[in-house]
Amino acid sequence: MNDENADPTQKAVVLVSGGLDSCVTAAIARQRHSQLLFLHVNYGQRTETREKRAFHDLADFWQVHDLLDVVIDPLRRVGGSSLTDPGIEVTEANLEAVDIPSSYVPFRNAHFLAAAASWAEVTGAGRIYIGAVEEDSSGYPDCRPAFYDAFNAVIELGTRPDTAIVIETPIIELSKRDIVLRGIELEAPLHLTWSCYRNEESACGTCDSCALRLRGFQQAGVEDPLPYEAQDQAPKRRN
Amino acid sequence: MNDENADPTQKAVVLVSGGLDSCVTAAIARQRHSQLLFLHVNYGQRTETREKRAFHDLADFWQVHDLLDVVIDPLRRVGGSSLTDPGIEVTEANLEAVDIPSSYVPFRNAHFLAAAASWAEVTGAGRIYIGAVEEDSSGYPDCRPAFYDAFNAVIELGTRPDTAIVIETPIIELSKRDIVLRGIELEAPLHLTWSCYRNEESACGTCDSCALRLRGFQQAGVEDPLPYEAQDQAPKRRN
Repeated sequence: MNDENADPTQKAVVLVSGGLDSCVTAAIARQRHSQLLFLHVNYGQRTETREKRAFHDLADFWQVHDLLDVVIDPLRRVGGSSLTDPGIEVTEANLEAVDIPSSYVPFRNAHFLAAAASWAEVTGAGRIYIGAVEEDSSGYPDCRPAFYDAFNAVIELGTRPDTAIVIETPIIELSKRDIVLRGIELEAPLHLTWSCYRNEESACGTCDSCALRLRGFQQAGVEDPLPYEAQDQAPKRRN
Repeated sequence: MNDENADPTQKAVVLVSGGLDSCVTAAIARQRHSQLLFLHVNYGQRTETREKRAFHDLADFWQVHDLLDVVIDPLRRVGGSSLTDPGIEVTEANLEAVDIPSSYVPFRNAHFLAAAASWAEVTGAGRIYIGAVEEDSSGYPDCRPAFYDAFNAVIELGTRPDTAIVIETPIIELSKRDIVLRGIELEAPLHLTWSCYRNEESACGTCDSCALRLRGFQQAGVEDPLPYEAQDQAPKRRN
């Protein structure tokens, strides 16, 4: 890791929440880079214990040994989201809605990228992978390509002159259906992932994240390997 | 704070480390805004206990009651700086050097701005103040105006469409001499600040931060009210 002649683009930091999107993103990064560093973020989200288990399961699967698991205290402290504030309910998904849902965590992905960029600068990694998805992203503003272009400019300006780090968002333009299919094509361990915002044992099937995931598997014609609570798996829709 | 008709630019988040620069920045913000929110960041820096005392002293002085004091775990964990890694020595200042000193914390200010932006979005504040200084900044890349312009674009793209937050860097083009003079003009409580990177009782007088501060006071023709270790206060210079 201290070989100055090493190609920094051979080493990549991957943000691994433990969900479907980060799993498929990691599978893509693994094809492109000889050394992966997995970064997991605890920002006070309800299902962190289950997510962290998925993170470690994915690291074990790919035998990734450079692991960093950090706490983003500001997100936990400022709240303002149903994912981090116990006083705000996780609502049922409404995939037709145009509003940003209550699960939006204010400016969340900027914290993730800052953590990844600092780690990449210290370790000499040249790439940061994040599984952001625009189309099926519930409308979060920090999941759009323009956000990542702007953040690349910030990294370029805010790090040492000889540091060269680029953010990669390999699935940002894919639908959830295509993400499922890409994951299967790459033999990614989708059975080790966790997506539910609400539960840690059986997925609820009806929060934003479950609803998008289930629709993706349904549209791909593939059965989701995760356990769901006994209920109608179809996402509920509000009128 | 929940008045939807309130002017969001009346409310500003100020990053307050407790040093000279953030004190003068806060004094400027206080002239412009009716409500200040003070944010302090613990990122594992050596002198955090003393800095936090300065933060609270400044808040008490201006009677600011909206305080948030957060931990930036990723910076503490990745190290790579003499400020956060006990294994890297805080070197004597060399104000003539062109290299970035060992006190550079990788991508530090991006973490600070992310925390401030998340808090501003949740509280409805329209401005973020940070006491970055380019000229006398030890050459840190994240203290240049272009970095803040780029970060403003990231905030605009990465927050809700109806969120409008702008970063203000009111002293970025000032020399340390002019910062001291501005602070005195504004009757800022410079005696409550702390700048030393190395000590918490008497300032060392020779780290980057002390050397810049002392030179600023000397050039302003003003005596620094802080206690220094008994030694020649002139910054040492390497050949």
